[in-house]
Amino acid sequence: MTESRLTGPVRIVGVGLLGSSIGLGLRAKGIEVILADASPTHLAISVDYGAGRPATPGDRPQLIVVCVPPDVTADVVAAELDAFPEAIVTDVASVKVAVFESLRDRGADLSRYIGTHPMAGRERGGPMSARADLFVGRPWVVVDHGNVSYQDASAIDDLILDLGATLVELTPEQHDAAVALVSHVPQVVSSLMARRLIEAPHASVNLAGQGLRDVTRIAASDPELWVQILGQNAQPVLEILRGYRDDLDRFIDALENMDAPGARRRVAEELFGGNTGFERLPGKHGVDRRYASLTVMVDDRPGQLAKLFNDVGDAGANIEDLRLEHSPGAQVGLAEISVLPEVLERLTDELAARGWRIAG
Amino acid sequence: MTESRLTGPVRIVGVGLLGSSIGLGLRAKGIEVILADASPTHLAISVDYGAGRPATPGDRPQLIVVCVPPDVTADVVAAELDAFPEAIVTDVASVKVAVFESLRDRGADLSRYIGTHPMAGRERGGPMSARADLFVGRPWVVVDHGNVSYQDASAIDDLILDLGATLVELTPEQHDAAVALVSHVPQVVSSLMARRLIEAPHASVNLAGQGLRDVTRIAASDPELWVQILGQNAQPVLEILRGYRDDLDRFIDALENMDAPGARRRVAEELFGGNTGFERLPGKHGVDRRYASLTVMVDDRPGQLAKLFNDVGDAGANIEDLRLEHSPGAQVGLAEISVLPEVLERLTDELAARGWRIAG
Repeated sequence: MTESRLTGPVRIVGVGLLGSSIGLGLRAKGIEVILADASPTHLAISVDYGAGRPATPGDRPQLIVVCVPPDVTADVVAAELDAFPEAIVTDVASVKVAVFESLRDRGADLSRYIGTHPMAGRERGGPMSARADLFVGRPWVVVDHGNVSYQDASAIDDLILDLGATLVELTPEQHDAAVALVSHVPQVVSSLMARRLIEAPHASVNLAGQGLRDVTRIAASDPELWVQILGQNAQPVLEILRGYRDDLDRFIDALENMDAPGARRRVAEELFGGNTGFERLPGKHGVDRRYASLTVMVDDRPGQLAKLFNDVGDAGANIEDLRLEHSPGAQVGLAEISVLPEVLERLTDELAARGWRIAG
Repeated sequence: MTESRLTGPVRIVGVGLLGSSIGLGLRAKGIEVILADASPTHLAISVDYGAGRPATPGDRPQLIVVCVPPDVTADVVAAELDAFPEAIVTDVASVKVAVFESLRDRGADLSRYIGTHPMAGRERGGPMSARADLFVGRPWVVVDHGNVSYQDASAIDDLILDLGATLVELTPEQHDAAVALVSHVPQVVSSLMARRLIEAPHASVNLAGQGLRDVTRIAASDPELWVQILGQNAQPVLEILRGYRDDLDRFIDALENMDAPGARRRVAEELFGGNTGFERLPGKHGVDRRYASLTVMVDDRPGQLAKLFNDVGDAGANIEDLRLEHSPGAQVGLAEISVLPEVLERLTDELAARGWRIAG
């Protein structure tokens, strides 16, 4: 554990998933954390979870992290800047231009404010879902605006590094365009797909497989939060949604005229474009071809996965990624294990020798 | 292993992923399997993999399973009905009305044909991706049309049960509407989303997380296959896509006028509809709330997962589902373990007592 360079206490306003997770992460580094929340219940839970202590009069935080819903973020940041004239203030809202403009327009002291956005979250919200490692290895965007001194800004950098995240610098406009693309529009696309299931016959939805599940997983997200996010980032989202709709119109038109010359080619090109776009994604499921995988059949009873992973460990292989597949009613599951390519053959032989059924 | 009721040999025409997997599954039951394919290379691979033996003159198959691409399925089924006048013939194409109508229109012997569709697959195709358990626990649709005797049809039922799948009976129209909803439209929605990434700046795509990855995963599918599928099921797909586009138009309109009365409510209702639709999905990630989950931090080195699963097994808990999360560059991963709710508390205590860091 490296020593933090943050010295003074950190005050966290809003102790939901993000606020409480930041508190837990900083406490694990031995940093004093002060918690504040409009909900006494949330505050009590977060304190019980060990995310920090309740605020008291006379607190003198070095750094304030505002973790409230997007539509009240600017108000709370402004109030904190006023209440603590020596503190650096940041926020973690998932839209940045609207918050910054609101603060500038009301004449807030921008020399002590930098917006940030950690690219981390869970489907479940609230302090009870918090975890100290929520930000480990995730990008955390810092939205610099040139009014803050390098020295003052360093407290923000320290916060991000303390929590194990990777610092990414973007302008507010770059940030909002980026999250519109990688987060906000996918949310809309997924929700609208899931809507199609509302009226569908049981016989239809019962045929659903992993493909539809993956496409619609984030459709389970909180609508109230998303109305705020989309409302504050409407223009960048609209720009991408309009391009998406143009594609959809072309697609529908081609499908309505499949016998017309060139229609099949147009459909193929739209789908092929999906291949090309998908390959641009970072990480294990995108362009990263570092891993090879094998699939092992596992009986659905206690101890079987443990036995499998023991055997994988005995073979000297490190599991880089894993996906379990288990159909309702089936007596076996499938474990797809990703490993470095150079160990795949040896591992496959070793597992087969130990009686595992290798399925692919 | 239960004894199969299939007696005569089964002939498989087309030894890609599905054909070879069927062959492997039937061979595991001791059934004689005859393989045929237009590609001598594919055929040789499939035979080497143990999916069956090559066809020879004089073969008298009891059952023929046609596993060729959708746009040649009807042609091949008709040819097989002619060539083997005593055999029952089925196919596994993912569209059923077009194949059936094509056979009926050319006067094929429908008293010996029933179409089917196993709801199983993998992103990778070809005989090298085949596996005997591909269909275990998956729905397999039988498209009855009333021209086949119960006794003749039973060979198809036997095939499906032998391969461990769950038999689902639908009309051709019900089937095509169902797969349009749960498979074909999600493919289009996912591909069109992924297309938006093609021209995006690196800084944007580098912020992508699991949400976008899930929404776009199936965008990596084979465009040529999908042009055939969509072309043969255009009307049901169009019907759903038009509803999707209407929703999208409404959504864009509301987002363009977020300050107008009722606009925010309209956006919220569209998103809330996504919640409702998602909850209709079967399986562990849908309405199935049978499981509780806990998240454990796991160091990224060999043997750690094995140790974790040993400890879970020692605690007497069966892992019902599991999701590994591992950000590039991070030294720890997160294992989200799903278990029966009644064992959650005990398991959490047990793992914590053994030094595991419980993250949620």
